[in-house]
Amino acid sequence: MPLDQLVQNLESALSKVPLIDPHSHIDPLKPVSKSLDDILGYHYYTELAHSAGMPQTLLAPEADPRDRVREIVKFMDRYDNTAQYAWFIDIAHTFLGLPESETRVSAGDADKLFDAALKTFAQPDWESQVFEKTRLEKIFLTNEFDDPLTGFDTAKYVPCLRTDTLVFHFDKPETRRRLEATTGIDVHDAASLRRALVRVFLRFTQNGAKACAISLPPTFHPAPFDDEHFYEQMQFHGYHDLASGIFWLIAELCRDFRLPFDLMIGVNRKVYPKGVYQGQDLFDQRTSLIQYRDLFNAFPEVTFPVSVLTSLQNQELMAYSWIFPNVLPNGHWWYSNTPPFIRKDLTERITAVPKTKLIGYYSDAYKLEFVKPKYGMYRRILAGVLADEFVRPGTLSETDAVALGTRLLRDNVREVFKV
Amino acid sequence: MPLDQLVQNLESALSKVPLIDPHSHIDPLKPVSKSLDDILGYHYYTELAHSAGMPQTLLAPEADPRDRVREIVKFMDRYDNTAQYAWFIDIAHTFLGLPESETRVSAGDADKLFDAALKTFAQPDWESQVFEKTRLEKIFLTNEFDDPLTGFDTAKYVPCLRTDTLVFHFDKPETRRRLEATTGIDVHDAASLRRALVRVFLRFTQNGAKACAISLPPTFHPAPFDDEHFYEQMQFHGYHDLASGIFWLIAELCRDFRLPFDLMIGVNRKVYPKGVYQGQDLFDQRTSLIQYRDLFNAFPEVTFPVSVLTSLQNQELMAYSWIFPNVLPNGHWWYSNTPPFIRKDLTERITAVPKTKLIGYYSDAYKLEFVKPKYGMYRRILAGVLADEFVRPGTLSETDAVALGTRLLRDNVREVFKV
Amino acid sequence: MPLDQLVQNLESALSKVPLIDPHSHIDPLKPVSKSLDDILGYHYYTELAHSAGMPQTLLAPEADPRDRVREIVKFMDRYDNTAQYAWFIDIAHTFLGLPESETRVSAGDADKLFDAALKTFAQPDWESQVFEKTRLEKIFLTNEFDDPLTGFDTAKYVPCLRTDTLVFHFDKPETRRRLEATTGIDVHDAASLRRALVRVFLRFTQNGAKACAISLPPTFHPAPFDDEHFYEQMQFHGYHDLASGIFWLIAELCRDFRLPFDLMIGVNRKVYPKGVYQGQDLFDQRTSLIQYRDLFNAFPEVTFPVSVLTSLQNQELMAYSWIFPNVLPNGHWWYSNTPPFIRKDLTERITAVPKTKLIGYYSDAYKLEFVKPKYGMYRRILAGVLADEFVRPGTLSETDAVALGTRLLRDNVREVFKV
Repeated sequence: MPLDQLVQNLESALSKVPLIDPHSHIDPLKPVSKSLDDILGYHYYTELAHSAGMPQTLLAPEADPRDRVREIVKFMDRYDNTAQYAWFIDIAHTFLGLPESETRVSAGDADKLFDAALKTFAQPDWESQVFEKTRLEKIFLTNEFDDPLTGFDTAKYVPCLRTDTLVFHFDKPETRRRLEATTGIDVHDAASLRRALVRVFLRFTQNGAKACAISLPPTFHPAPFDDEHFYEQMQFHGYHDLASGIFWLIAELCRDFRLPFDLMIGVNRKVYPKGVYQGQDLFDQRTSLIQYRDLFNAFPEVTFPVSVLTSLQNQELMAYSWIFPNVLPNGHWWYSNTPPFIRKDLTERITAVPKTKLIGYYSDAYKLEFVKPKYGMYRRILAGVLADEFVRPGTLSETDAVALGTRLLRDNVREVFKV
Repeated sequence: MPLDQLVQNLESALSKVPLIDPHSHIDPLKPVSKSLDDILGYHYYTELAHSAGMPQTLLAPEADPRDRVREIVKFMDRYDNTAQYAWFIDIAHTFLGLPESETRVSAGDADKLFDAALKTFAQPDWESQVFEKTRLEKIFLTNEFDDPLTGFDTAKYVPCLRTDTLVFHFDKPETRRRLEATTGIDVHDAASLRRALVRVFLRFTQNGAKACAISLPPTFHPAPFDDEHFYEQMQFHGYHDLASGIFWLIAELCRDFRLPFDLMIGVNRKVYPKGVYQGQDLFDQRTSLIQYRDLFNAFPEVTFPVSVLTSLQNQELMAYSWIFPNVLPNGHWWYSNTPPFIRKDLTERITAVPKTKLIGYYSDAYKLEFVKPKYGMYRRILAGVLADEFVRPGTLSETDAVALGTRLLRDNVREVFKV
Repeated sequence: MPLDQLVQNLESALSKVPLIDPHSHIDPLKPVSKSLDDILGYHYYTELAHSAGMPQTLLAPEADPRDRVREIVKFMDRYDNTAQYAWFIDIAHTFLGLPESETRVSAGDADKLFDAALKTFAQPDWESQVFEKTRLEKIFLTNEFDDPLTGFDTAKYVPCLRTDTLVFHFDKPETRRRLEATTGIDVHDAASLRRALVRVFLRFTQNGAKACAISLPPTFHPAPFDDEHFYEQMQFHGYHDLASGIFWLIAELCRDFRLPFDLMIGVNRKVYPKGVYQGQDLFDQRTSLIQYRDLFNAFPEVTFPVSVLTSLQNQELMAYSWIFPNVLPNGHWWYSNTPPFIRKDLTERITAVPKTKLIGYYSDAYKLEFVKPKYGMYRRILAGVLADEFVRPGTLSETDAVALGTRLLRDNVREVFKV
């Protein structure tokens, strides 16, 4: 019983659009996987296997990668219903030679796949093969403020200044030491902080950075701090409680340097501290974009592509994007990056927010091999939404629907981030 | 690829039901548009155009209406994906002679449409033409407490006492001055306030008012105040902080005068103060109907048709309506008045709340020309929900499904508001 | 216009799976109905009839059961759109001889149905007939801590220790008197409380109890109390404010006795105190699973099947179940137990949480006759979700989809509760 022809047509047309992926965690010096352990070590798989009962023993760095892969694959028959498992099957089909006719992977396949991956990933042109099979044109990075931005092609790997550490860990001496090391400035008051941040922004924009980004807890309220407050906290209170004010300074620099500021709103870190690596964060649904009211009003010149962790905040995101010219809905993040949430959130946005403001998707990938299955999932849902909301009701022709989809997939990324 | 036949049949049958629209902002002395500027000056279009990048220059009252229309139409190719754009296309088809075969309007069409509108709207019987093409029987107004209620046919234009100003702006001398002007009573304590409100209610009910209404912020908690508290706040605290208590007095009068009290819950005013006129309000999703617990318990004789601003509150509204005999779900308001939210909220209500309590829809229109496209959108969704939830599973025949739809569209409005 | 064949096939296959119902309010000594009054006295019908305008006069215990049934049936034409009405029609078809061709019940049918019920329910093997027609194998009970656990077959009727009274009413002398009566222990400090609870757990587990359960208000935060705090509250503060601490002790005993601890989160009791019996409880959507963070971390050995009252918390439940090995989504509770919410919540869970952790459904029934229509509703939705999310996209064969459905319906109940 095949999916209907209209959805297939739309999906097929959309799959030809070259991708500019506006958010990932790719290391540009090691962008592709070296072994299946790089694929299955992705936190989605370790989380699900652990959640389904896998002990963490083999997740230790010193464990044998092949054993770890066997273990994660062994538990797949407990989580083979998930979207994440479907990404892996897509990877196995596209990159590891699993025949299209085989739609399952089970314990017995681990070694075969491990070997196939080793061989495949060792090809000298593997990186460019992945780019080609993915129709990937550019992909944004997530760079720490002191990351080196050289040694890679910034036309392909677009730097993006991630500011979580500066904002939320400025009370740690290590953060200030790193900031001094990269800028030459010892921060002891608002003025020196501003100077140091300017140097960071200068270096990033000179090296092709196209965005600034941060992830924020559900309780966060941005607020401007006056210089006296910075001084007092820095001199007498161990640099504590400066997050709101540092964030505000960074917004000022986004304005001055004309960088969009990606806000990723809603994550509580280390809710399950004994969870697997990167599988410890959850959230509190009780949060509101009203917390960003002052920010959005104070910076009309700054574009804020906003991601929300929960689908519950999607109506706020839709409404704030409908009203504020500088607020844009950005992709489908993490716990909202599964088909039911994408379908719901996309449908709500695409029927109410100006189409030129909709940034459809980003992969959030750690390795390039994940861009294809994640965008594949998104395109299938996008095709379905375009069919149901626009083509079937007679509002758009198939051609126009593909153009609308292309806008979400690519055009808006180019325009918003000026790439 | 047409919509399926069943949905078309249901929609067609529902489109024959004469409408009683239980909430609008129509001015009964100027109910229809005079020019296309009246249509496109509706805040939905100015908001979306501004959100998509339109400067506000031409929105100034002194700007030329034709220039303003050109500007708003020019930006349509940035928001032609929205439900609001679809309303405009419907208006252009129905009222402005745009051929059905043309499904888009672009910059070049602005002047032609402007001229067509001028000519069409100038017809002496335009108001009755709109009533007829819309199959509109009656429409509720939104009247300030001191609005004149004469000079129009209250059988067609049903007065409704809007109480936001009394409740939320009683600390403004202007409000008290206006209240004294319309009632002859100088309010200085609870007794005089009660007397003044009684006069307002008397005048409204004697002039055919069928409802009282108010819009409320997410944090609002109704509460009875004792007379001493009124006295103290009025005498010594500049009439401040009386909102909860005045609201409660109004609920008492709704009981005494047997008027339903429409609650429109969840709006934060002026979140984006530099936004376009009427395009400045947003919300905080963190609100609950539990805040109305005492009210619903204290006034079992008052019918409360409740609108919620966010779809997130729809499950509460469904549950409170299922339990409290005096709580009724009322239409789909503002940021929840787009197809995905209507579909979801309607489906949730129609499968769990007694059908005699479901007030399906209201237009919220400022000009009569909007009643048709808005109800048209609603009927299409209603037809789909009736098909999916009742006819296809074999629970209702097509005829019975149309009867259920008619109940939501018309019968319940008649019964609840006694019109 | 029939439902599509694929969904029918899946539903038909799923309907053959023998049921183990992991949560009900069945009285094992009076598990089946004696008259139609037992069926229509279920709070869903009294609530809906009352919400739609039925006075409560005939709900008094001394009223004639036949008159009460007539009254509730008389109001059905006001709530015959609801899922609950559909359950009743299913019961009438399956158990009361209503011909399948008749899909409505109206006022005139009350006496005929009442008589049919009296005769049918009087059959000596009625209980086993219901078990058979329902394909019911086992059903969990909800037992007060001092309920007798004898006189019934615990292989069929599985005891479950409900702890609401112990946790939330320990300040009532009656609770402590009952606890002393059943355990022989006078509770006056933490140690004696622990001893008394151990006796309760011993008696329950020795009598085949397979779970502990509790329903919790939206504001609840579990927390460990130290012994001094227990002592002080018990000696000097009338045993007040101990809920969080008693709850924590019970979690410790769930760990020690290896019982899953069912959490049913989100209910506010007596919001509408003049409502019908059991129809007085509502909720506040503003609640979060983050309140259970410490609990889930402190008890990795305890399995927590979690039910949430609102669909709004479903994304949290999905995410917490995806991350915490000991958190499992459990069924569709009360105000989320209607088709639109089940469909949404199930789809969100089944695409993101390991399938071995999904406890599909429970009936929450007070009389056995309700297990069939409720599970019937669930299976129809489950079949639709399996078709849309897995079979139509080509991810699963029909056979594999039925296996996945069977896991939700039965396998996981067996494994999680060890029955």
